[in-house]
Amino acid sequence: MKGIEDYIITIPDFPEEGVMFRDVTSVLQDEDGFRLAVDLMQKKLEGLEFDVIAGAESRGFFFAAPLAYNLHKPFVPVRKKGKLPRETVSIRYELEYDVAELEIHRDAIKPGQKVVLIDDLIATGGTNEAMIKLVESLGGEVIKAVFLMELAGLHGRERLKGYDVDAVITYPGK
Amino acid sequence: MKGIEDYIITIPDFPEEGVMFRDVTSVLQDEDGFRLAVDLMQKKLEGLEFDVIAGAESRGFFFAAPLAYNLHKPFVPVRKKGKLPRETVSIRYELEYDVAELEIHRDAIKPGQKVVLIDDLIATGGTNEAMIKLVESLGGEVIKAVFLMELAGLHGRERLKGYDVDAVITYPGK
Repeated sequence: MKGIEDYIITIPDFPEEGVMFRDVTSVLQDEDGFRLAVDLMQKKLEGLEFDVIAGAESRGFFFAAPLAYNLHKPFVPVRKKGKLPRETVSIRYELEYDVAELEIHRDAIKPGQKVVLIDDLIATGGTNEAMIKLVESLGGEVIKAVFLMELAGLHGRERLKGYDVDAVITYPGK
Repeated sequence: MKGIEDYIITIPDFPEEGVMFRDVTSVLQDEDGFRLAVDLMQKKLEGLEFDVIAGAESRGFFFAAPLAYNLHKPFVPVRKKGKLPRETVSIRYELEYDVAELEIHRDAIKPGQKVVLIDDLIATGGTNEAMIKLVESLGGEVIKAVFLMELAGLHGRERLKGYDVDAVITYPGK
């Protein structure tokens, strides 16, 4: 039987030199790979009581959507600036060579709600940290963050210290 | 019991004046609304034999991902230019005031495969027509396109004439 790592194609030097890009679309485009990925992420949430699943644009949607459906939870998309039509709260944060801005609908999370974050990847943890701040600014509590893949060499876990971080597959490098 | 229309919030004049924006995120962020939306789209595919689900960035992913999981099909994301890491084919097409470019991985669809397109909305049909051309350029056959919402006043169906187009909810206007 194939493991999840067998479905992940690695592309050297994308999007820039020196980066080993772990391509999640190769998982999606195999029906067994996609099922396995969602099932393994879902296993990380077994027995956990929570209220909301939040997923990050765009690759987080690939997994947040089926998990929310399967577990019968609200699915809250965290989007790039300007995409959400109703009242939002937003956060600016620094990327390696750029500044990004994420938004969430103000009514998407109610104070005291327990929130699970879903994304395809934890790298430096910058995007994930921004998502946590957004959720907390609405009074939500991030009780777990689940990723399909982790690039341990970028130390995202340290950045999210104090939070429950879990990944299906951990690559030692960057 | 609530119908799907009860979960859709309409925002006047977004993203520009005169547009009645049908907000799909209000469906997602209600666990019953999201389940109902996916189930009603899935019903449109009942009994249909096909090979691949293709979904458009980003809102199409909300529905394409759970449908692919539920029906155990490959999920092929059609993305904006520059996001896909492997070899792609791309298409440029005109929007009302702009030009857009979509891409698909070359190996995502094999010649002769039957493809279902999924998106949240059919408006003018421009994006959907571009997606169809992409799939066909790889030798795939688009046997159905399923949308959660249709803005009938924008005549997307006419643009996709000859294809099997289905929507869960049809608004008469724009």
